[in-house]
Amino acid sequence: MSTSISPLALPFPDMSPVAGVTLRVARARYKEWDRCDLTVAELAPGTVVAGVLTQSRCPSPEVEWCRRALVLGEARALVVNAGNSNAFTGHRGRAAVEAIAARAAAAFGCKPSDVFVASTGVIGVPLPIDKAEAGLDAAVAAAPADWRAAAEAIGTTDTYPKGATVTAMVDGRTVTLAGIVKGSGMIAPDMATMLGFVFTDAAVEAGFLQRALADANARTFSCITVDGDTSTSDTVLAFATGAAGNAPLASEENAGADAFRAALADLCRQLALLVVRDGEGASKLIEVIVEGAESDRSAHRIAMSIANSPLVKTAIAGEDANWGRVVMAVGKAGEPAERDRLSIRFGATPVAEAGLAVEGYDEAPVAAHLKGREVEIGVDLGLGEGSARVWTCDLTHGYISINADYRS
Amino acid sequence: MSTSISPLALPFPDMSPVAGVTLRVARARYKEWDRCDLTVAELAPGTVVAGVLTQSRCPSPEVEWCRRALVLGEARALVVNAGNSNAFTGHRGRAAVEAIAARAAAAFGCKPSDVFVASTGVIGVPLPIDKAEAGLDAAVAAAPADWRAAAEAIGTTDTYPKGATVTAMVDGRTVTLAGIVKGSGMIAPDMATMLGFVFTDAAVEAGFLQRALADANARTFSCITVDGDTSTSDTVLAFATGAAGNAPLASEENAGADAFRAALADLCRQLALLVVRDGEGASKLIEVIVEGAESDRSAHRIAMSIANSPLVKTAIAGEDANWGRVVMAVGKAGEPAERDRLSIRFGATPVAEAGLAVEGYDEAPVAAHLKGREVEIGVDLGLGEGSARVWTCDLTHGYISINADYRS
Repeated sequence: MSTSISPLALPFPDMSPVAGVTLRVARARYKEWDRCDLTVAELAPGTVVAGVLTQSRCPSPEVEWCRRALVLGEARALVVNAGNSNAFTGHRGRAAVEAIAARAAAAFGCKPSDVFVASTGVIGVPLPIDKAEAGLDAAVAAAPADWRAAAEAIGTTDTYPKGATVTAMVDGRTVTLAGIVKGSGMIAPDMATMLGFVFTDAAVEAGFLQRALADANARTFSCITVDGDTSTSDTVLAFATGAAGNAPLASEENAGADAFRAALADLCRQLALLVVRDGEGASKLIEVIVEGAESDRSAHRIAMSIANSPLVKTAIAGEDANWGRVVMAVGKAGEPAERDRLSIRFGATPVAEAGLAVEGYDEAPVAAHLKGREVEIGVDLGLGEGSARVWTCDLTHGYISINADYRS
Repeated sequence: MSTSISPLALPFPDMSPVAGVTLRVARARYKEWDRCDLTVAELAPGTVVAGVLTQSRCPSPEVEWCRRALVLGEARALVVNAGNSNAFTGHRGRAAVEAIAARAAAAFGCKPSDVFVASTGVIGVPLPIDKAEAGLDAAVAAAPADWRAAAEAIGTTDTYPKGATVTAMVDGRTVTLAGIVKGSGMIAPDMATMLGFVFTDAAVEAGFLQRALADANARTFSCITVDGDTSTSDTVLAFATGAAGNAPLASEENAGADAFRAALADLCRQLALLVVRDGEGASKLIEVIVEGAESDRSAHRIAMSIANSPLVKTAIAGEDANWGRVVMAVGKAGEPAERDRLSIRFGATPVAEAGLAVEGYDEAPVAAHLKGREVEIGVDLGLGEGSARVWTCDLTHGYISINADYRS
C-alpha cells in the first residue's frame, strides 16, 4: 500500500465472514517490504467457481492456469501473490504456478486443478518459487484473517484496501456475497480488470455462476478504465461455497436467481468503482453516460473513447468545462454520430445542443459541479436507443509521478 | 507560440520561395494576443490541390468545406486561422467559412470554391466573421511574408515554427517542395493530423497529386501520435502551382513520378516528426518499430497500441527500461501475437526474447539509450513479414500542466 491515500477513497466496510471461506495471509517478501503479500482463501469442499480473464494476447501463466482450471468448475483454494505478476517469464513462470498449485493441493487435500492462482506486480521477473512456497506454508499455518487483511495483502500500488458485501434472498434464505479487489493502474476494460475475488455462501451451479458473473462483469468491471492499458493478469473469480444450504441455483428460472444476479452485479459495480476511485493520481471520479446511440455497443465504444481521452481527463482535472474535447472524443470513436444532433451536459446542465453551444448557459452550476469529487458527463447522440455508462478518473500530475518511476 | 520551447525542437530551416506561392500574414486577433494569427497563401492560376482530412464524425465546417472543394482539384488561395477552430459551431461556423471564401475570392478574382480554409484552436466558439474579414483584408494588403512568418502564424500551442523543404528532379528540372505544419496536442493518426500545408512549383495533375499525398500521408502523418486524440480539424493540403514548367505529372509511369513521390513522402515525414517533437510536454522522441507481424496493418495497430500506452510513455519519461509495459501494450492490441515468440529491444539491445527476459542482458547501453533525446523501441512478433514504424513522444508532467488549464 502506498502511504498517500486517494482523495476518493472510501472507508473499508464492515464485512461478515462467508461460510465456507477461510482467509489467511503471510509475508512471502516478493519485494523488499514488510507487509503481507501472499493471500490464501481456503474453500469448503463442493465450492463452485466461475471467472472472467484478461483478453490480452500475452497473458500471465496464472491466467492460463485459471482458464484451464475453470473448465472443471470446482475450487478448494485461491492463492494470490502481490508484488510480482510472474507475467512474461516463460517456462519458469509456468513452473512457479504449478509448484504453488501442487503445494496448496497437498495442504488442503485436493487436486492441483482445484487451486486458483493470481499474481500482480512487475512483469518479466519469474516468481521466486522458494519465496512462494515458504509464504504459502506460513499462510497455511497462520490464524484466519479478516477481509480487510486480505484486501490489504492483495494490493500493490493501491492506496487503500477495497472490499464490499451485499446480501440476497434465495430460496427463503439470506445469502451473503463478499468481494475484494485490487488495482489502480494498467486498468482498462477488456472482460475483466486487475484482480477481483467474489465469495458467496450461496449454492450455485457452475454454469449459472459463470453466466451471472460474465453478465455482471460486462456492466461493471468492463465499464471502467483508468488509463486504457489492459493488464496481462486481469482476473475476476467468483467462488460459491454452498454453505447457505439453499437449493442450488441452476438456471435463470429458479426462484431467487434474479435476486442473486442483481446482488452479484451490485457487488461487482461497487468493487469496480473502488478501483476507479484508486486510479493512479485520481482526484475526481468521472461517470460518462452515453444515450441515443445506434446500439448499446456503439454507446459503450463512444463512452470509452471519452473516458480514455487524455484531453478530456486533463480538462476535468483542471475543472475546465471544455466540452469541445468531448466532441473530439465522440468524433474519433469511429461510431455513428452526427455533429448536428449531438448534445452534451456536465452534471445536469446542458452545455451543447444540436451541434452548437447552448447560448448563454449558466456557467455557475457547471463550475460548481466540476469542483466536486464526482463529475458526470452526459452525451446524447440523438440517433437511436443505445446507451452505456462507464467510469473513469481524471488524469493528473499524480499519474505521471507514480508511473515515471514505478519499477526501478 | 508558447514561451517555453520544446527540448526536441529543431531550428527552422533555410527555405526558398516556391514559384507561384505568395504568403502573407496579419493580426485577426482571434485571441487576446499580439501576434499574427491569420495566414493567406495566394496561389498562381492553374494551381492543383490534393488533401487528406480528419476522419472524425464531428468535423469542423472548414473540413467539410475543403472536402467539397477538393473534388474540383483547383486552388487559388489558402486561408488559415489560428486561435479558434470554429468546430462545433453550427450554422454560424458554416457562415464564417463561406464569408472568408467569398471575401478571398473577391480579393484574388477567383471562385469561392478555389479558396481553401483551415482553422485551429478552441472548439465550440463561432469564428467571429468581423475579425476574420478585417484580418483577411489586412493580410491581402500586407507585404509578402516568408515561410517562417507563416509557420509562426498558423501555430497555437506549438512551441516553435515548423517547416521543411526538399527538391526533386522531374522532367529535367529541379522542382521544389516546401511545407509548414502546426500541432502539438490532440494529435493522433487518422488519415491526417492537425494542419499541414505543402506547396510545390512542380506541374502535377490533381489525381496523381492526391494519390501521392494519400500514400505519403499513410506512412508519415498517419504514423504519429502524441495523445491518441484525433482532432475535429485535421487537414493536410498539397498545392502544386506548376510554375516549374515541367511536363505535368499525371501517372506513376511518368519520368520523375517516382522522384516526386519520394520527395513528397520525405517532406511529409520531416513535417510529421516536427509535430511529434513539439508534442505537448515531450522530452523524448520515441520511434516504435514493429516487425514479424502477420501483416503491415496488424503491425501498425500493435505499434500504435505501444505508442499510445500511457504506461509505456511514462516509463520512457522516467528513463525506465520497463519492457513489461511493452508486452502489455502488445497484448492489448487485439492483434495476433504469441507471447512465447515475442522479442523486444530498446535501441540495439535485446531485453526480452522468445517470451522471457534476456538472461543477464547488459543494462548499461539500455540505460544510456534511454537517457538520450531519441528512443527506439523494437518489437519482433516472430509470426510473419508485416512491419510498421510509428513515432510518438513521452508523457510527462508538462502534458498535464498544458492541458489541465488550456482553455480558460
